[in-house]
Amino acid sequence: MTFELTVLGSSSALPTSTKFPAAQVLNAHERFFLIDCGEGTQIQLRKAKVKFGRMNHIFISHLHGDHVFGLFGLLSTLNLLGRKTTMHIFGHSDLKYIIAFYLEHFAPENSYEIEIHPVVKRQLQLIFENKAIEVFAFPLKHKVPTFGYLFREKKRLLNIKKEVIEKYNPSIKQIVEIKKGADLITEKDEIVSNKELTIVPPKPRSFAYCSDTMVYEKITSYIKGVDLLYHEATFLECDTKLAKSTSHSTTVQAATIAKKAGVKKLLIGHFSTRYNSYEEFLPESRKIFRHTEAAEDLSVYTI
Amino acid sequence: MTFELTVLGSSSALPTSTKFPAAQVLNAHERFFLIDCGEGTQIQLRKAKVKFGRMNHIFISHLHGDHVFGLFGLLSTLNLLGRKTTMHIFGHSDLKYIIAFYLEHFAPENSYEIEIHPVVKRQLQLIFENKAIEVFAFPLKHKVPTFGYLFREKKRLLNIKKEVIEKYNPSIKQIVEIKKGADLITEKDEIVSNKELTIVPPKPRSFAYCSDTMVYEKITSYIKGVDLLYHEATFLECDTKLAKSTSHSTTVQAATIAKKAGVKKLLIGHFSTRYNSYEEFLPESRKIFRHTEAAEDLSVYTI
Repeated sequence: MTFELTVLGSSSALPTSTKFPAAQVLNAHERFFLIDCGEGTQIQLRKAKVKFGRMNHIFISHLHGDHVFGLFGLLSTLNLLGRKTTMHIFGHSDLKYIIAFYLEHFAPENSYEIEIHPVVKRQLQLIFENKAIEVFAFPLKHKVPTFGYLFREKKRLLNIKKEVIEKYNPSIKQIVEIKKGADLITEKDEIVSNKELTIVPPKPRSFAYCSDTMVYEKITSYIKGVDLLYHEATFLECDTKLAKSTSHSTTVQAATIAKKAGVKKLLIGHFSTRYNSYEEFLPESRKIFRHTEAAEDLSVYTI
Repeated sequence: MTFELTVLGSSSALPTSTKFPAAQVLNAHERFFLIDCGEGTQIQLRKAKVKFGRMNHIFISHLHGDHVFGLFGLLSTLNLLGRKTTMHIFGHSDLKYIIAFYLEHFAPENSYEIEIHPVVKRQLQLIFENKAIEVFAFPLKHKVPTFGYLFREKKRLLNIKKEVIEKYNPSIKQIVEIKKGADLITEKDEIVSNKELTIVPPKPRSFAYCSDTMVYEKITSYIKGVDLLYHEATFLECDTKLAKSTSHSTTVQAATIAKKAGVKKLLIGHFSTRYNSYEEFLPESRKIFRHTEAAEDLSVYTI
């Protein structure tokens, strides 16, 4: 089952000729979850060959332009394509003003419903689930209300070994029970232990998105041990003061959070354009947390 | 003196992985005039290395999303860069709602003034001029009020031949008169004809932008003989009916307008994404009007 992240934009507020503003898309079992939607997101989605029809959920971290200006074009394109399925958008309740403006001025007869799911500022909260995954929101620390998102595969049932079906011919009811962990009682009243019948499925995978935020230790409890953590690292270590005053993080701070949370892998991004090159971001983070990667537009990260 | 057009986006309503939505920038004597502002315009401007500080005027054809969604990001970036100079935006008066929304939700303390210049629906009207150029607006025929724009260099004064200055040592006042066409009366009361004193400057150059519009013969009088005409050609000839019902033009219609207006060169664009390739647009237009080019993103056209 696919569980992979595509970075659509890795720049901070100012896009460049090679880096779009914030947006990522998570492919969770062939359902596409869009996270933030900076200007040009629909163009990047095209390049990443994401099927728009399989994208029904958008998660917005906060309402700064570089995280939402792509909504207008994306929603408008879906309308022109004649979409019928409801689009669910999660984020701060003021999203309603953005959507209302879009509908009033650009799509009074929008072809599909847009449902806004306001996220409120409290501890880790389940905001969405389907058969395969759960999505949680949690507060970050930025200049305006901002939310991090945790995507976690649900624990899968045990897989029954192929030969068990042939050998014991269990009923549907028995299969359901075995998949949950039960032993099998055969027609001859023999007990076959669950261990002999099943294969343990792969461990559920998880991804957390934390942008924009200043360093905020509280989140380590929410994102503990995730397979992949995306944490913004707008600034290099030399600009730690600037990071604080602008409510952003540095390379070192992002890596420190990753280390404290015991994540498997850290992905840094939301890079400021104030530096001559992006080369120093990665080594700075890696000094603290070795398993770091630096986000690049259209790179794919298998989780 | 530079007079050149850079196409920033050549797609129609739906952008693709290689074609951005509508936007162009005209470099007229190192001042940059932005025409339309589809999503991603600021990214394309970066790629085209346009200096944002030399861009003080934006001309919007009409208020469909694919021509204006890039305003949010562009205006926002200029704010983050601390711009102080007023930005002048020309277009339909409803532009005020878009700018008001941007200011209220994303830039309550915008660092610079935004001045909206409403264009009204009447014949060819002068809407802007500086020392070097004049800009005229005129109505097109589309589903909503839409304007074409004509950019024309002002007629330049005559150039005085270098040797004249040395030979006759004319006063400042005399120089001004000679440049306007006067003869020179020397200290010895000899008359030197203007022809002997001056070189005729190059003919003023002109560019017209016509998008979006259905075929509309009336514009040929406004754009007569322009050096470069950009005219939308959303559809191939086989979709002439569709062009009419959606208030757009075909390749053949655009070429026919160019021919009737006696323009020097036609540039077609705003291509629909409904076709498998863009290859047929150009030959179809060239059958009618040989001096046609097909717009490509980031191509530069010297006028």
